[in-house]
Amino acid sequence: MIRHVVLWKLNATHPEDRRHTVEGITERLERLVGIVPGLLALEVHADLGSTGGNWDVLLLSEHEDELALAAYQDHPEHLKATTWIRGVVQSRAAVDSRA
Amino acid sequence: MIRHVVLWKLNATHPEDRRHTVEGITERLERLVGIVPGLLALEVHADLGSTGGNWDVLLLSEHEDELALAAYQDHPEHLKATTWIRGVVQSRAAVDSRA
Repeated sequence: MIRHVVLWKLNATHPEDRRHTVEGITERLERLVGIVPGLLALEVHADLGSTGGNWDVLLLSEHEDELALAAYQDHPEHLKATTWIRGVVQSRAAVDSRA
Repeated sequence: MIRHVVLWKLNATHPEDRRHTVEGITERLERLVGIVPGLLALEVHADLGSTGGNWDVLLLSEHEDELALAAYQDHPEHLKATTWIRGVVQSRAAVDSRA
């Protein structure tokens, strides 16, 4: 199994806008479970906001294997989500590892 | 329970140096389980290296609550580890969330 971890820094600064952005990311990504083959689990979480310098959003997803992760990356429904997400984030960091 | 996720980009570029760096980070952090109160689990993983633009190392740790995470951050043995890690990484991104 492969664990895909992504962290984002959001563009929005106002708390209400940030909350809406996190909701938008969560809706667009969590719906992919059951749509994208080999995607076993997917969670999106906002940072607690208690540590200065932290980024804003965590995506944690689990995929059957590296092929399933590649299929997820290229899946049209995922590409739709990432197109929207790219418009609301200023930074992205990702690491994929064996779980 | 609080999930603490950190991603790093390493300074090292040569594969052998990168492997040693990941080993050094892993040794210094994984030993903290059993030393730092409220630290339930801690894993360090290198990126698979199959996706361009990914960062290099994932730390995934679980803490009883926010107080336990704060105690971890300030623990002398953790501070020793982070002092060493700061010398071998060029970028750090972190998100803490409820698990």
